[in-house]
Amino acid sequence: MRIGILTAGGDCPGLNAVIRAAGRKLLREGHEPVGLLRGYRGLAHQDHRPLDHAALSGLLPLGGTILSTSSYDPYRHDDGPARIEAAMARGDVDAVIAIGGEHTMDITRRLHERLALPVVGVPKTIDNDIVGTDRTFGFDTAVHVAAEAIDRLHSTAQSHDRVMVVEVMGRNAGWIAVTAAIAGGADGVLVPEVETPVEEIAATIRGRHDRGKDFSIIVVSEGARLCFADGRSEKIVANEETDEYGYERLGGIGAALAAELERETGYETRVVVLGHIQRGGTPTANDRVLATQYGVAAAEAVLAGDLGKMVALQRGEITTIPLSDVVGVKGIDMRLLELAKVFF
Amino acid sequence: MRIGILTAGGDCPGLNAVIRAAGRKLLREGHEPVGLLRGYRGLAHQDHRPLDHAALSGLLPLGGTILSTSSYDPYRHDDGPARIEAAMARGDVDAVIAIGGEHTMDITRRLHERLALPVVGVPKTIDNDIVGTDRTFGFDTAVHVAAEAIDRLHSTAQSHDRVMVVEVMGRNAGWIAVTAAIAGGADGVLVPEVETPVEEIAATIRGRHDRGKDFSIIVVSEGARLCFADGRSEKIVANEETDEYGYERLGGIGAALAAELERETGYETRVVVLGHIQRGGTPTANDRVLATQYGVAAAEAVLAGDLGKMVALQRGEITTIPLSDVVGVKGIDMRLLELAKVFF
Amino acid sequence: MRIGILTAGGDCPGLNAVIRAAGRKLLREGHEPVGLLRGYRGLAHQDHRPLDHAALSGLLPLGGTILSTSSYDPYRHDDGPARIEAAMARGDVDAVIAIGGEHTMDITRRLHERLALPVVGVPKTIDNDIVGTDRTFGFDTAVHVAAEAIDRLHSTAQSHDRVMVVEVMGRNAGWIAVTAAIAGGADGVLVPEVETPVEEIAATIRGRHDRGKDFSIIVVSEGARLCFADGRSEKIVANEETDEYGYERLGGIGAALAAELERETGYETRVVVLGHIQRGGTPTANDRVLATQYGVAAAEAVLAGDLGKMVALQRGEITTIPLSDVVGVKGIDMRLLELAKVFF
Amino acid sequence: MRIGILTAGGDCPGLNAVIRAAGRKLLREGHEPVGLLRGYRGLAHQDHRPLDHAALSGLLPLGGTILSTSSYDPYRHDDGPARIEAAMARGDVDAVIAIGGEHTMDITRRLHERLALPVVGVPKTIDNDIVGTDRTFGFDTAVHVAAEAIDRLHSTAQSHDRVMVVEVMGRNAGWIAVTAAIAGGADGVLVPEVETPVEEIAATIRGRHDRGKDFSIIVVSEGARLCFADGRSEKIVANEETDEYGYERLGGIGAALAAELERETGYETRVVVLGHIQRGGTPTANDRVLATQYGVAAAEAVLAGDLGKMVALQRGEITTIPLSDVVGVKGIDMRLLELAKVFF
Repeated sequence: MRIGILTAGGDCPGLNAVIRAAGRKLLREGHEPVGLLRGYRGLAHQDHRPLDHAALSGLLPLGGTILSTSSYDPYRHDDGPARIEAAMARGDVDAVIAIGGEHTMDITRRLHERLALPVVGVPKTIDNDIVGTDRTFGFDTAVHVAAEAIDRLHSTAQSHDRVMVVEVMGRNAGWIAVTAAIAGGADGVLVPEVETPVEEIAATIRGRHDRGKDFSIIVVSEGARLCFADGRSEKIVANEETDEYGYERLGGIGAALAAELERETGYETRVVVLGHIQRGGTPTANDRVLATQYGVAAAEAVLAGDLGKMVALQRGEITTIPLSDVVGVKGIDMRLLELAKVFF
Repeated sequence: MRIGILTAGGDCPGLNAVIRAAGRKLLREGHEPVGLLRGYRGLAHQDHRPLDHAALSGLLPLGGTILSTSSYDPYRHDDGPARIEAAMARGDVDAVIAIGGEHTMDITRRLHERLALPVVGVPKTIDNDIVGTDRTFGFDTAVHVAAEAIDRLHSTAQSHDRVMVVEVMGRNAGWIAVTAAIAGGADGVLVPEVETPVEEIAATIRGRHDRGKDFSIIVVSEGARLCFADGRSEKIVANEETDEYGYERLGGIGAALAAELERETGYETRVVVLGHIQRGGTPTANDRVLATQYGVAAAEAVLAGDLGKMVALQRGEITTIPLSDVVGVKGIDMRLLELAKVFF
Repeated sequence: MRIGILTAGGDCPGLNAVIRAAGRKLLREGHEPVGLLRGYRGLAHQDHRPLDHAALSGLLPLGGTILSTSSYDPYRHDDGPARIEAAMARGDVDAVIAIGGEHTMDITRRLHERLALPVVGVPKTIDNDIVGTDRTFGFDTAVHVAAEAIDRLHSTAQSHDRVMVVEVMGRNAGWIAVTAAIAGGADGVLVPEVETPVEEIAATIRGRHDRGKDFSIIVVSEGARLCFADGRSEKIVANEETDEYGYERLGGIGAALAAELERETGYETRVVVLGHIQRGGTPTANDRVLATQYGVAAAEAVLAGDLGKMVALQRGEITTIPLSDVVGVKGIDMRLLELAKVFF
Repeated sequence: MRIGILTAGGDCPGLNAVIRAAGRKLLREGHEPVGLLRGYRGLAHQDHRPLDHAALSGLLPLGGTILSTSSYDPYRHDDGPARIEAAMARGDVDAVIAIGGEHTMDITRRLHERLALPVVGVPKTIDNDIVGTDRTFGFDTAVHVAAEAIDRLHSTAQSHDRVMVVEVMGRNAGWIAVTAAIAGGADGVLVPEVETPVEEIAATIRGRHDRGKDFSIIVVSEGARLCFADGRSEKIVANEETDEYGYERLGGIGAALAAELERETGYETRVVVLGHIQRGGTPTANDRVLATQYGVAAAEAVLAGDLGKMVALQRGEITTIPLSDVVGVKGIDMRLLELAKVFF
């Protein structure tokens, strides 16, 4: 069999590790993996590259994706579905392994249901918010980068009696924020799932000062919203047009929260927006293992004819679930938020 | 309540994070955590230190243990049990949180069963081989250090057409070896759970050379045994007397394997013994979270009267299990070994 | 002798390493180091802490400063000079080692000239722009953090055909920018020392695209100014009032440059503002060595009566220079900029 | 001009960065860089690969050398010199940039003097012991890796009241040992340049215990020799036959010192031999800059006809020196040893 592999959407540490794992498994079983460039665009526009042993060499620690990526959606182009059908008719590929986020899983499901494209999805997001899987690769790396940054900021906060606001990624779910807050020993966290009044954070900071702790670290998801005791609520939204996190964000939630906290508490407050350094570069050992598990599992699913599925991690086991079950956003485990609060 | 916290056995990244988490949770609930120095020796010899907010500050990223540790076993001292009973009679502590490895869990169980010491155990080993829990803190850090080392060795192996043997920790189980092998993209792995003939590894290396790959990385657990096609088997044992990994080990399995591989294949072979750098220093973000979960869960178990238990991670959930269930060694998940082999 | 040690101004990796080195050297020679808290405020307000062996333990890898810091300037307080004189009259300290930036060196010089305070300065800035010394501690760490971030951004830029603008610290000099640009393999750099028209950067980016390189990394000092081929020039200034880098900066030069480049080239452009993560946390090995050299040299200068001086690194040698020579800003070595341009 | 670039000898972080820098500079000036594979063997055996923009892409952070390396010495092969002359006669290359250690510089000098080969050398060793240059690329990375390891070992040493012996590279000079000792805050260091009686180290350790410091870190160069107060001296030599550090070393100086110290002091002592992880992998930012400076300077020297030279760093300036001056071993700056001793 000739099996196309594609990557779509934003960058995520471990993409190349998935490509390598799926490709190597397919080669070992006597099949032919082929790279489809820039997501489904490569399938629609017959833009391929061979994935032989040489092409798959050295990929495990490498950030980014050798297949490039895009936000191409065949259903947003008039000729998109027809092009996919033509590719199938030509026999360009016998099946597709699609590595992408929620949006890509949705496209993948539709291509499977409507055009009978033989597909297996691999969930990809640093945000860890894809429904149906306990963890996505890239998440551990994002948390690692965020926790390292918080470690560095701690020394400055402590030496300078400062409040430091750290804005991390997470537009719809607060997984990175709450996990990095626990790992970095933060003194407050704001996530999209819960409305946290600014006054509550300010009270925590004042309480710390009263106990002689003249510094605080507050972690905030980019998708958290500011709300206030008087009922006002304010969401600093990203540019809804763009699928990605743009520089419009720089005046976002972190800066707004820092300004509010400084006004509320009178303490000097600084903000750091971690941005793209959370989503690129070499994956952690942990993410390399998960990406490898997913890649091999996706190849196995294709070879077993277990199609229209997404590989997933559930309660410690690698498994597959129907793409039709991958709907919505997986919010944080509230027990993590409770755990973080033990230390506020 | 006055609750003693102790750390016993070898070093492990995250010990201080557990102490901090348990201590902070107890303080928050209005109880008094107290540090028992050098494991159960501190309980037996009334060697305590207070664990107030100041003492618990700054511990999350800190390697080692502020409570020191030892291999003191009350049952190996004639006056040991009596001393523990005296401490209980004096009311030195109302309960104990014991952080340690399999041996410490065994002592803890006996103290609970024989002397009715109110205890909760926290499983600690970088080796990840404690029965009853899916993961122990320190393991992710050990794998991270090993994978980073393998990344560094890769460039040398590749540029110099070398075989590199990397000896990692794991006397009874191959968790670190197999996980680091997957994360580092190794070309062979030897673990204590499976006898792998040296000739099989040599054949893999020769196969790689035949395909134009003039270098190989082989990962070996310190507790793996060398075996040969003719049925000979050889275990390079550590000094059985010492509870720790000593310099006697330096001429151990890694060096022996390297010599055999060089003899078998004729390719230049080098060995690196990672040793103690795997078991010290700041924990990864991942380990900090798990250590924090364990510490808080241990405090909660003590406060709930859920005694004679060990906190554990099972299928993604933090729980407690009877100490009497913590028997033997948890060998590796064989599916990991299969996964590693996809890339050999 | 009783020698006060103080740290003033912004955070900088290696402060604690200097304190430790000076303190340990003084203890070894039989003298008494004492910590003056929050810069010269501690001297003026008799706010001291003893620096014995225990207080100096564990400081080498530790970020921040155990002595806290502030921007207190005795010459901005009516009673400032009198308080310093009173401290001298009381014999609070026999000499002072002042660790700080250009502004602190200026205060230190005046206290020496006007009040005959026996002082030795230690130059501190991550920006490496203090006149009279070839390098300051903290600079190598800042470059290390920036280069690591650029490495991570590279993978995203490459996979997504993006232009990435990385804003690094450096208000008056471009040392961090040009060094990180060389170390990270950037495709353009803007520094305060040279006016670089936006069109020139845009032309480089277009040239890369023409050669098939669909991504670019541009590094910009926060103090660079945007200028244009038609002669317009625009400096996005920090809040001149604050001595520190505030969140007002977030809409600064990086975001402005990204917007201009996207407009000029039509390519998607993102910005990352590294901010405070460059100036906190554990120092690199290199910075720890320099900080240790400076600390010991400062102690030696005090003991030798070599006062009114600043320790410095000149052409590979540790030496002292008169504080009166420490005037202005040390701009970048233009050969570094030429070196960076070889790769544009 | 067609200019050959080669790498010879052991691995060293920054080799690829030098290749890239020299190659890119030559391309920019309109010349043709070509890779000679496996050192001078590639020149002798006409084993080349083109170095165009694509081949030079992505090399800056990459460990190892894309040109491979070997210990091939034309003067150890009967037909070696003739082969080099034939290559020159054929016009394979118009000049050679040779990146290697002291031995390679010696070969390069002879080829220049005897065969008039137009050459420029680039000094390469993690050991920093090449005469004529203040620093070599790779050294900062080796120290960084060693200091990180010492940081990790510190926590274990401290928690377990242990003496830890860390054996680092440095067969003829103690640069890595003394620099890592300063950066890691070691309590003792042994280098090849100075005979340090084991009893002296033991006395330091006992002195620390007397002051309540129950742990110590001792750094030892692999080329240090053990000596004793009674005049005995013992050098644990590497296999003199091999140019590289082999597994024969594992029972070397570190293990011997640990055994002696444990015998002398009675304290538990462990050894870690860092080995090859010091000499592979991605270079530090600092080494990337130096490697880039050397590569560009070597290209410039070739183009300027400044031949028979080695590029060097002297008192902060990049320069060239005659290859005939590169003789012997550059021992450590004794002031570094004095600096380290302030903290013993």
